[in-house]
Amino acid sequence: MMIDIKEAAEYFIANDNFLLLSHIRPDGDTLGSAAALARALTAMGKRVNHLCGDTIGKDFEFMFDGLELTEFETSHVVAVDVADTKLLGEEVKAKYGNRVELCIDHHASNCIYAQKTFLEQDSASVAEMVYLLLCEMKADITPVIASCLFTGVTTDTGCFRFSNTTLRTFEIAAELVKAGADSYGIITTFFETKTKNFAALERLALDSMKFFLDDRCAVICITRDMFEKSGTDETQTDRLSNLPRQIEGVLVGVMIKELKTGEFKASVRTHGDVKASEICALLGGGGHAGAAACTVDGPKEHAINALVNAVESVLNRND
Amino acid sequence: MMIDIKEAAEYFIANDNFLLLSHIRPDGDTLGSAAALARALTAMGKRVNHLCGDTIGKDFEFMFDGLELTEFETSHVVAVDVADTKLLGEEVKAKYGNRVELCIDHHASNCIYAQKTFLEQDSASVAEMVYLLLCEMKADITPVIASCLFTGVTTDTGCFRFSNTTLRTFEIAAELVKAGADSYGIITTFFETKTKNFAALERLALDSMKFFLDDRCAVICITRDMFEKSGTDETQTDRLSNLPRQIEGVLVGVMIKELKTGEFKASVRTHGDVKASEICALLGGGGHAGAAACTVDGPKEHAINALVNAVESVLNRND
Repeated sequence: MMIDIKEAAEYFIANDNFLLLSHIRPDGDTLGSAAALARALTAMGKRVNHLCGDTIGKDFEFMFDGLELTEFETSHVVAVDVADTKLLGEEVKAKYGNRVELCIDHHASNCIYAQKTFLEQDSASVAEMVYLLLCEMKADITPVIASCLFTGVTTDTGCFRFSNTTLRTFEIAAELVKAGADSYGIITTFFETKTKNFAALERLALDSMKFFLDDRCAVICITRDMFEKSGTDETQTDRLSNLPRQIEGVLVGVMIKELKTGEFKASVRTHGDVKASEICALLGGGGHAGAAACTVDGPKEHAINALVNAVESVLNRND
Repeated sequence: MMIDIKEAAEYFIANDNFLLLSHIRPDGDTLGSAAALARALTAMGKRVNHLCGDTIGKDFEFMFDGLELTEFETSHVVAVDVADTKLLGEEVKAKYGNRVELCIDHHASNCIYAQKTFLEQDSASVAEMVYLLLCEMKADITPVIASCLFTGVTTDTGCFRFSNTTLRTFEIAAELVKAGADSYGIITTFFETKTKNFAALERLALDSMKFFLDDRCAVICITRDMFEKSGTDETQTDRLSNLPRQIEGVLVGVMIKELKTGEFKASVRTHGDVKASEICALLGGGGHAGAAACTVDGPKEHAINALVNAVESVLNRND
């Protein structure tokens, strides 16, 4: 059943003993939105726990600092920014995958696996939805809640740069700063800080850039060798996925990275009417119109070919 | 005489036949603020002209499109985002430097050369000031005026990333988007688009990065040779000046570029309490707390040494 913001607010007000679930390879939106909800519900006297079937990066730790998450018999399972139960990770999926009562999400590709789904596919981030949900619930937006949500708002929009950014995004950003979000600290951490190792990886990635299809498609390819040379690993590539699309004239930017399995994970970013989700769907993946992902077999040359062919099909379709 | 926003609004309402001046090496703020003012004043039936003693880049042309700037006997000269008459360029300075009635600026280093100065040194951009000034004047903020101002707001804050970004910045950004600013187009143009040549220069610049003073200072050095190799020139380095400061642990990031004269122009960016303006003042330059500039003699090694020594003095002073 699809529900709206009022029904979602009523659900949280009427119930207690929540377990909030974030997706694996957790980002600022799944964690910030869950942490903000957890903090607001806790302040309302409710018991809340949070579970993520993956390691939480140190930059996100502030979100859960001082939040008392106690063990208790979970009554109500809520998934946050999780489009598919497989994104919960195997263990969490096995335990809670078929028990999700409410899913709050913004992915057009949401599998509608929960009993109730609060979905806004035009929302740039779940954090925007949770901000308005907390307002609807008349929850107090404390500075740390504002910082959690500001992290989601900025990380899911590339700091207001992606095409999903709307007037509402700017309005909510202003409201969150007014509520005390550490906007400068958050933006510095997530967008203006890189380790020397990451900077080295970035240089290798830029050096690998190749152009296809009359320069309408740019591909960077990050191999295991590059991770080794730079002292990085495949969890550190998120901020590189936008680089190929930045080149003037490029409609589709692709970053592929070699996984430990020898497969290649591709992140596709598009401009204008070209749908990244359509390109990735051809290769068994999915995502948003402007940003999507898929996994293809190696070796490197095969992976690049597979992507370029998929890009070509979708560009031809659009022509 | 220092004046406030009400007095500035009264000045524009009471007068007619304005000449608006922008600074040389014109950026989004000096041009966007002047264009927004010119459009609003023109819509109020006043005659306005605009002058910049330098070439205006093609990305800024939209600001002046369709704006009828007619020749007439200039009665009232207004400088926009111009901290010092020498920044008008020689010719414009000679003609109008001592005739500036009003200066609208946000530089702490403003020389107070105008008869009236409307200065807000905590404002991230002059565009923020002009937005509020136009509201004070009850001017209609059309979509193109909003786009001019949004360009100033974003380019002077590195798209909300610099420490000068405040709650007011986000609030005004939201108001401008609501008024019809082409936020996505502007951000894409100024922050998410690079030519292949620029990308090549960026790689060369990153390769040149060196660390000093226990890694608290990072320097990139762009030589004539690099401009030649990449097919770029020294007008295209603005977006590189922030790169050295992004490295974790770096307090002072310096970009130096070789001018045709053999001198080196240095752009200094700092974190926290370290004042870029103090560092550049030691070398005869100036600017803001977080971003300042100066010019030093070559050769390259001499220029780097001069900068590193100035950085060291200021870091020692702060310790």
